[in-house]
Amino acid sequence: MAPFLSKRDLQFQLYEVLDTASLPSRPRFAEHSREVYDDVLTLAYNVADKYFANHAREADLNEPHIVDGKVQLVPGVQAAVNAFRDAGFFSAHHDEALGGLQLPWVVLQAVQAHFQAANVGSSGYAFLTIGNANLQREFASGVQQAKYMMPMLEGRWFGTMALSEPHAGSGLADITTSATPRDDGQYNISGSKMWISGGEHELSENIVHLVLARIKGAPAGVKGISLFIVPRYRVGEDGSVGEPNNVVLAGLNHKMGYRGTTNTLLNFGEGGETVGELVGEVGRGLAYMFRMMNEARIGVGMGAVMLGYAGYLASLEYARDRKQGRHASNKDPLSGMVSIIEHADVKRLLLRQKSIVEGGLALGLYASAIVDDIQTGPEDQKADNELLLDLLTPLVKSWPSKYSQEALSDAIQVMGGAGYTRDYPVEMYYRDNRLNPIHEGTEGIQGNDLLGRKLSQAGGRGWQVLLDKMKADLTASEGLDGLRAALRTAIDECQSAFQTILGKAPQLGPDVFLANANSALEILGHTVIGWMWLRQAAAAARALPGARGDDADFYRGKIQAAHFFAVYELPKVKWQADLLASADTTTHDMQGAWF
Amino acid sequence: MAPFLSKRDLQFQLYEVLDTASLPSRPRFAEHSREVYDDVLTLAYNVADKYFANHAREADLNEPHIVDGKVQLVPGVQAAVNAFRDAGFFSAHHDEALGGLQLPWVVLQAVQAHFQAANVGSSGYAFLTIGNANLQREFASGVQQAKYMMPMLEGRWFGTMALSEPHAGSGLADITTSATPRDDGQYNISGSKMWISGGEHELSENIVHLVLARIKGAPAGVKGISLFIVPRYRVGEDGSVGEPNNVVLAGLNHKMGYRGTTNTLLNFGEGGETVGELVGEVGRGLAYMFRMMNEARIGVGMGAVMLGYAGYLASLEYARDRKQGRHASNKDPLSGMVSIIEHADVKRLLLRQKSIVEGGLALGLYASAIVDDIQTGPEDQKADNELLLDLLTPLVKSWPSKYSQEALSDAIQVMGGAGYTRDYPVEMYYRDNRLNPIHEGTEGIQGNDLLGRKLSQAGGRGWQVLLDKMKADLTASEGLDGLRAALRTAIDECQSAFQTILGKAPQLGPDVFLANANSALEILGHTVIGWMWLRQAAAAARALPGARGDDADFYRGKIQAAHFFAVYELPKVKWQADLLASADTTTHDMQGAWF
Repeated sequence: MAPFLSKRDLQFQLYEVLDTASLPSRPRFAEHSREVYDDVLTLAYNVADKYFANHAREADLNEPHIVDGKVQLVPGVQAAVNAFRDAGFFSAHHDEALGGLQLPWVVLQAVQAHFQAANVGSSGYAFLTIGNANLQREFASGVQQAKYMMPMLEGRWFGTMALSEPHAGSGLADITTSATPRDDGQYNISGSKMWISGGEHELSENIVHLVLARIKGAPAGVKGISLFIVPRYRVGEDGSVGEPNNVVLAGLNHKMGYRGTTNTLLNFGEGGETVGELVGEVGRGLAYMFRMMNEARIGVGMGAVMLGYAGYLASLEYARDRKQGRHASNKDPLSGMVSIIEHADVKRLLLRQKSIVEGGLALGLYASAIVDDIQTGPEDQKADNELLLDLLTPLVKSWPSKYSQEALSDAIQVMGGAGYTRDYPVEMYYRDNRLNPIHEGTEGIQGNDLLGRKLSQAGGRGWQVLLDKMKADLTASEGLDGLRAALRTAIDECQSAFQTILGKAPQLGPDVFLANANSALEILGHTVIGWMWLRQAAAAARALPGARGDDADFYRGKIQAAHFFAVYELPKVKWQADLLASADTTTHDMQGAWF
Repeated sequence: MAPFLSKRDLQFQLYEVLDTASLPSRPRFAEHSREVYDDVLTLAYNVADKYFANHAREADLNEPHIVDGKVQLVPGVQAAVNAFRDAGFFSAHHDEALGGLQLPWVVLQAVQAHFQAANVGSSGYAFLTIGNANLQREFASGVQQAKYMMPMLEGRWFGTMALSEPHAGSGLADITTSATPRDDGQYNISGSKMWISGGEHELSENIVHLVLARIKGAPAGVKGISLFIVPRYRVGEDGSVGEPNNVVLAGLNHKMGYRGTTNTLLNFGEGGETVGELVGEVGRGLAYMFRMMNEARIGVGMGAVMLGYAGYLASLEYARDRKQGRHASNKDPLSGMVSIIEHADVKRLLLRQKSIVEGGLALGLYASAIVDDIQTGPEDQKADNELLLDLLTPLVKSWPSKYSQEALSDAIQVMGGAGYTRDYPVEMYYRDNRLNPIHEGTEGIQGNDLLGRKLSQAGGRGWQVLLDKMKADLTASEGLDGLRAALRTAIDECQSAFQTILGKAPQLGPDVFLANANSALEILGHTVIGWMWLRQAAAAARALPGARGDDADFYRGKIQAAHFFAVYELPKVKWQADLLASADTTTHDMQGAWF
């Protein structure tokens, strides 16, 4: 069985591309050191290997089902979340005063990457809980935090985000779940929520749902939406878990993949009152939720990266072991067969995977490091960093979701018929990852977010920050001329296309302006990944002269993969940039009746 | 439930793009008429709808398994193949003297398209049988045909093709299954065959395996391979089914999709003698098999088209029904939600699917019509048509296999979370179709076949024939200037790239020459599909002035989809043509140790 993660690459990304080892110079991380981070990563690897990887296939083959009204999961899930809890990962990034280690966000993401790679389904329960608690930490009252968040930091209670409704999946403006004020200051919640991951299970003592709902009389649209804490079991003043809160499991969704995470339809206020507590201010629900959503979007992107990465490693091991055929130049049928990794087309499929998953990992960790910079970095860069993170978020979410799927298809292709069977994990990863372009904001939503909002946010300041950073790296790196030229071209094509389409926007009107928003996502996604590859290649080129053996091979592989991305992927930017700039109306003009 | 096939488009393709209605002017089809063909298509639709579509999901959920040594399938499969048999489709294209209807190949493909769309798994048994019988019809002796082929034409016996072996999936030169001459003129077959679809089941009275094996003392490599008929049960001189022939089911493969078709590991000569009959001449096995393989490759391509098409129709119906969100220009939350088909990005996803599946269908039927032209068309064009078909075959096989997968991903994306669940069929089609780029020659093999063999075959005559035909359609069509310009550019880019790389081939050597063979497949595939769209758009433009209502909408949709392909797909040719012409060595130079 191939490893689910490359420890060597993770070290490279954290310490040679990013400057994670310098974080302990910041006051919040003063107790840390690279050794502390490496110990945490080793712990993560061991827990993921022993308690998560062990039942990934079993959970896939035995999807959650209901017996006597209770959700049944394979036993490994409980052991996994317990081990995750015992390792302290539910609270690792929180303040020491809350029992945490004050771990930097980038290290926490690197920790989580292990669990996503080893078993994305079982990791879902933990990550939703962490995200939910983070939202509470920022917006819930002290009393609410003590009551609901603290048991989650201890890993005793789990959490969800409950946004979508059956009649309005992505259309949050149209949700109808209602909240009726009670005499005790709380609210009666009534309605249905669809696609709720981790919505029901017996893994934890309680489940804390963060529910979007409208208080009676609230205005239509997003301004009428408030956020509520709705526990599965009501909670006493002393924090004790009490009677059921009438959150009724109305059904489980049967998914193609990602089957270890229950996905539910929940009814609130059915057969009795469902009581919820308002979080923060009335009408600010969606804004609060976006705190969790943006974090979840980075998490989805990282999950996609790690599924793709695990598939790459599996197909790589297979390609080294499996012998078949000969070089095209060898016509002697009596000569021995070669490992398929020697065939150019197999190398193409492996290089493509490598360029996608290692590029995606670089981006996910880069974005995570910005979270740390916002929280603990120089104060005078905070506003720029927030805008940069806002701009990158749709890319971090959507690019790996889409391209890891292509990488996983390449992994299957490397392995041929074997890859199409349950004898190997790649077909499972392929089914798992197909969810990622859908949940936490579809690709369409990410495209509209990028072109319609983020590129022009704050007068285009975030875009300017990104441009400056990319151009600085273009000039900083020596050698690697081909890479720099290819990236410079892609940057120029993006810049020109964005300038053109944003300039035309007022005349075009919103519908035509956004008709090719997907192309904006595509071209900037590829360009940013190209930038991530220049950064990796530059780090590898610096290290190569002093490297020997496996290390030298590793760095040569990085440089070759960077060239691959420049030659086989970056040229895809031009035509889509041209399309975007042209404001083509082919899709807009198409009529429903013509299909 | 959405229809699995568009009758309107099939009519358009057969009678408005192709000239199928003129086939009855050929002597072999003299008894036919358009009405005959339409009756056959109606019969196919009804049988596919009633007996195939009904258990597609059930067969997916209950994959073949072994009980008491016998393969268990869901009951619907037996009813389906019986209905297919009763409709006469096993022999429909054969001579009247053999009980057939002498149906043209293009009509037979249109018939088969119904079954592929309705239930690709159950259709596999029938199609393998038809292909097997076709090979026998061409290369087996009269005695063999009477003994083995005739029961297959009657649908009583089924057939397989047994090429791959566990140690050599695609590497047929290295197969080791042996054939030892017996005193009775037959051979004892010994060895293992892997990935054998339809290799074992209880659906038919007998199973006729076409097995590649080496006669003791044969030379190494492909020249030492002969072809054998190996029945599951031995057959008496009177055609009676006798004792088992010791073809032992060693295991079933557990696939991600396409689960209705059993896929087996078979051992020959285990626990007793397995007797086989030589087909044709010694050492010609692979050449004979390619008769069936080439037919199977077109069948795989058509199967991929139809899976993609069924997914398109399912997502189209969903997009019309499902209401969510508003136009970007409408900020009024009190206004009603619109059908998602009105969102530009959903129209993009639907147009992409339409352009892929209808383009792929046009290509599959075009290639099928060439088969008819070879068999019953003008004798002086036969050699050119054979070369043209040879050249198109890798494209017909690989392009829809790859792009239907992207179309099916788009279908899932249109439907969001719903598309990711078993509540709709698209996730199943997505899993089913992922086999198509693998079996009957992987994408890598198709690329090598195209660039390494077909483009330069007969001094490049096939390529010249294709160029002439494409250029003739460029000048024949009036209007549609944008389409013609886009296609002309793509043709020029292909022509230039092929000329350059073929010219460099001698200096490059086979390994570097073929390193980017995949790009040859990609650029010519897209260009040929672009040509198919010009042909469809031209037919639609001719018909539009006289059309009303639904018909007019249909033709407008064709023209719009052609424009979509020209604007959103054909521009992808250029960078890959440049890559191919550059003879880039990035993949070739990559070392296994660097990964």
